[in-house]
Amino acid sequence: MNPNKLRPVDRRRFLITATSLVAGINLLPQTSWAEETNLPQTGLHIVGPMEGYTPQVGTLLSMMNWMRATVLRSLQGLSPADLDFLQDPKANTIGAMLMHLAATEIFYQANTFEGRSEPNEAEKKQWGAAMELGDAGRNTIKGNKLNYYLDALNEVREKTKKEFKQRDDAWLMTVDPKFFGGQPTNNYCKWFHVAEHESNHNGQIKWIKGRLPGAKRAKD
Amino acid sequence: MNPNKLRPVDRRRFLITATSLVAGINLLPQTSWAEETNLPQTGLHIVGPMEGYTPQVGTLLSMMNWMRATVLRSLQGLSPADLDFLQDPKANTIGAMLMHLAATEIFYQANTFEGRSEPNEAEKKQWGAAMELGDAGRNTIKGNKLNYYLDALNEVREKTKKEFKQRDDAWLMTVDPKFFGGQPTNNYCKWFHVAEHESNHNGQIKWIKGRLPGAKRAKD
Repeated sequence: MNPNKLRPVDRRRFLITATSLVAGINLLPQTSWAEETNLPQTGLHIVGPMEGYTPQVGTLLSMMNWMRATVLRSLQGLSPADLDFLQDPKANTIGAMLMHLAATEIFYQANTFEGRSEPNEAEKKQWGAAMELGDAGRNTIKGNKLNYYLDALNEVREKTKKEFKQRDDAWLMTVDPKFFGGQPTNNYCKWFHVAEHESNHNGQIKWIKGRLPGAKRAKD
Repeated sequence: MNPNKLRPVDRRRFLITATSLVAGINLLPQTSWAEETNLPQTGLHIVGPMEGYTPQVGTLLSMMNWMRATVLRSLQGLSPADLDFLQDPKANTIGAMLMHLAATEIFYQANTFEGRSEPNEAEKKQWGAAMELGDAGRNTIKGNKLNYYLDALNEVREKTKKEFKQRDDAWLMTVDPKFFGGQPTNNYCKWFHVAEHESNHNGQIKWIKGRLPGAKRAKD
């Protein structure tokens, strides 16, 4: 899940840089536990810079990777029937929610990489039902194996990573004057939303999993 | 929601620093849209450094603030009956989930600020039901107005912010050798989890809201 390795030099510079910025901050002594710092070079559970990306973009991507791994953990062993299970007429299926996650990322690619506020016609055709969910999602997104959804998620994420490699931290801080709530919003905020939005639906996925026929109580 | 203002100098240095770290990265020209960069000093939807915190700690906190504001938006107008509504016998109420969010933050405070792997006796007594949810949560967390939960969330968050002010980016990158999945995990990853965990339950809160007696279809 986290194929891009961080070079030691990058992580050290990330910290040195941070320290050089905190003049004037009164730092308490760190606890002995914190002093036993031992920074590994890699790892899913290390949020921080990643090789091949600028420091803040890599840090964001490490969060997105962690989040995605968490979602994938919820999906292990789900059958097509599980993925199509509709808890009630207002519900979305797990399958539809997975396509919705991919479609959401498509929208934020268009928005932050190309500056578009709307999906284009091709995107609407391919992703419209997944973007909207509701009846459109219920009617058209079904009958697929888990790999169908995982492939869609992977394909979209690979494009995101390719584009991230071509951008830098100044891009990440670039502000769209009107976005969330009609207010100034930077690209970092938009992509943080892409990450946390996966968790929003992961909570619902686990909720549904706990109510599949024959399911035990789901974890929270 | 975002009372800590970023001084212009800090944000500029955050970007300059980032740029100075990307030697060797082949940057594509930014789009004209991205070139119209106009960084505001403040704002809920600006993820980045915050005055009073080291750059990465402030960036994390800006994400936590954004996430909390998103959760609060889901809660507007909920009555005690709404907060106690149990969709089915396996469900958690919205009220119990809100206390669970506060209790989760209590645990990560103990873990990352004090190096404890378990809550102490006082924390177990006060927060045990909220940490566990399930029957304990269903039996004991009920009958409260929304402000009861918001006050708990605020009180815990204020402690987090106070502690964050006393720590730095090196602390944020400090690695616990065994945590998630028994693997190395840094404090940034633990606190990103605290943030995304709010979204996990926000997804469930919106799911329940859409099924309250008389509710219209909830947004995703």
